[in-house]
Amino acid sequence: MPDSRLSLNQKTTQHWDVTRAVEGCVDAGLMWIGLWREHVGELGVEATADLVRTAGLKVSSLCRGGFFPSDTAEGWKGAVEENRRVIEEAAILGTDTVVLVCGGIAGGDLETSRRQVADGIEAIVPYAADHGIRLAIEPLHPMFCADRSVIVSLTQALDVAERFPAETVGVVIDTYHLWWDPEVWDQIQRAGDRIFSYQVCDWLDPLPDLLMGRGMMGDGVIDFPRFTAAVEAAGYSGPIEVEIFNEEVWDTPGAEVLETMIERYERLVTP
Amino acid sequence: MPDSRLSLNQKTTQHWDVTRAVEGCVDAGLMWIGLWREHVGELGVEATADLVRTAGLKVSSLCRGGFFPSDTAEGWKGAVEENRRVIEEAAILGTDTVVLVCGGIAGGDLETSRRQVADGIEAIVPYAADHGIRLAIEPLHPMFCADRSVIVSLTQALDVAERFPAETVGVVIDTYHLWWDPEVWDQIQRAGDRIFSYQVCDWLDPLPDLLMGRGMMGDGVIDFPRFTAAVEAAGYSGPIEVEIFNEEVWDTPGAEVLETMIERYERLVTP
Repeated sequence: MPDSRLSLNQKTTQHWDVTRAVEGCVDAGLMWIGLWREHVGELGVEATADLVRTAGLKVSSLCRGGFFPSDTAEGWKGAVEENRRVIEEAAILGTDTVVLVCGGIAGGDLETSRRQVADGIEAIVPYAADHGIRLAIEPLHPMFCADRSVIVSLTQALDVAERFPAETVGVVIDTYHLWWDPEVWDQIQRAGDRIFSYQVCDWLDPLPDLLMGRGMMGDGVIDFPRFTAAVEAAGYSGPIEVEIFNEEVWDTPGAEVLETMIERYERLVTP
Repeated sequence: MPDSRLSLNQKTTQHWDVTRAVEGCVDAGLMWIGLWREHVGELGVEATADLVRTAGLKVSSLCRGGFFPSDTAEGWKGAVEENRRVIEEAAILGTDTVVLVCGGIAGGDLETSRRQVADGIEAIVPYAADHGIRLAIEPLHPMFCADRSVIVSLTQALDVAERFPAETVGVVIDTYHLWWDPEVWDQIQRAGDRIFSYQVCDWLDPLPDLLMGRGMMGDGVIDFPRFTAAVEAAGYSGPIEVEIFNEEVWDTPGAEVLETMIERYERLVTP
């Protein structure tokens, strides 16, 4: 059986619906799955929760909340409301972790957008705590600063997270987004018990595409043993999600992707 | 006449040879040009130096030295030797500034590559000082970490630069590479008289391409007035280069590009 910490983030098998993804995890002997709202929405939240529970799987995280910045006050309030729905769905799905992709620049102003992210998180913290949900801020690679996340480094994510209780607001350590940062090792140590999620995939060189250029571990330049050692030294012992956005991976039969994923994970991520 | 600090980095008019670029600057009333070795090489270093001097132009920088990392000791030594040639050429061309694009990962190891960059700079500092040349480390956007520059932030560039005399080793402030960084404003202040070059272009959203997706100022998301104010507050009063990698800009007649560049520069970069 594969390592009991390994989790399939269902984005890695994008062309599988949630039913097929759950079957795929069971067939491969995995214990965990990371869910995306878009897929959950196809089947419905309650039905997905039943499906996962019946299959004996645990849900490592729900992706995603966030996208707070808006050029109108109504837009920002709408985003906060939507994040409350994500928290409710996560609670029904039986996960304790919502991943926050915080959103890009709105209205042309980076500083305002960053404030809107912090204010948005502040607005949903009590609701998350009431539902037993942890909010995991995911710093994205700086190349996504304009359109997806004005939170671009672990340092910055922790600066925001530390304004709130450590039980409720933490961070995602995603190798693809963080590997370039000379400060990342010190910041992983700083993160400590605020590490709510650890996600892995590789950085291909040359990079075929900003969004869709992620690679299977071992196909790129990232030092996975060092990342895993750092995350564990900081105290993290939770699930490890493999999350790959890549058309070539998506066009490969899912069972084959899982087979490769398990082999690479065991050889590189938890050697 | 345009602002006497405005400089055409000749990459902005990529399809012009150096002769046409010098003519273009004179026609537009510019005082400065930033040269690239690939273009200088076409005409020859001495001939380019004569051409520029006769035209009454000053050379704001020579791009580029760097690319130190190598998976062999000979490769690294070869890079150091090549950088000595760049220093000699810069001295002949009459500029005091060589831009260092430090190079990506060699041999698969990020930490070793970063050490090779620092060691490479150390190896050429005396030669640069003897030739009256300043070495300007250019932190590139983190999306270029694997293939072009393991130096990815102003913080990191200054950490390297500060090991050497402030007269000889400093940094380039390039808006495209640095705008996303929450630390950039403090780091520009920290840089002080180590700011050897200030380069501007915009970040388009969505980004059409990693390398070739740079935009004319005003077409993207960057806050130029804030950058210029920060750089000036730190004490920089030298030339300001416009450097744009973009096929659409390159396919526009050069004189038209310079006209737009001057208008945008005056409206946005030095308002």
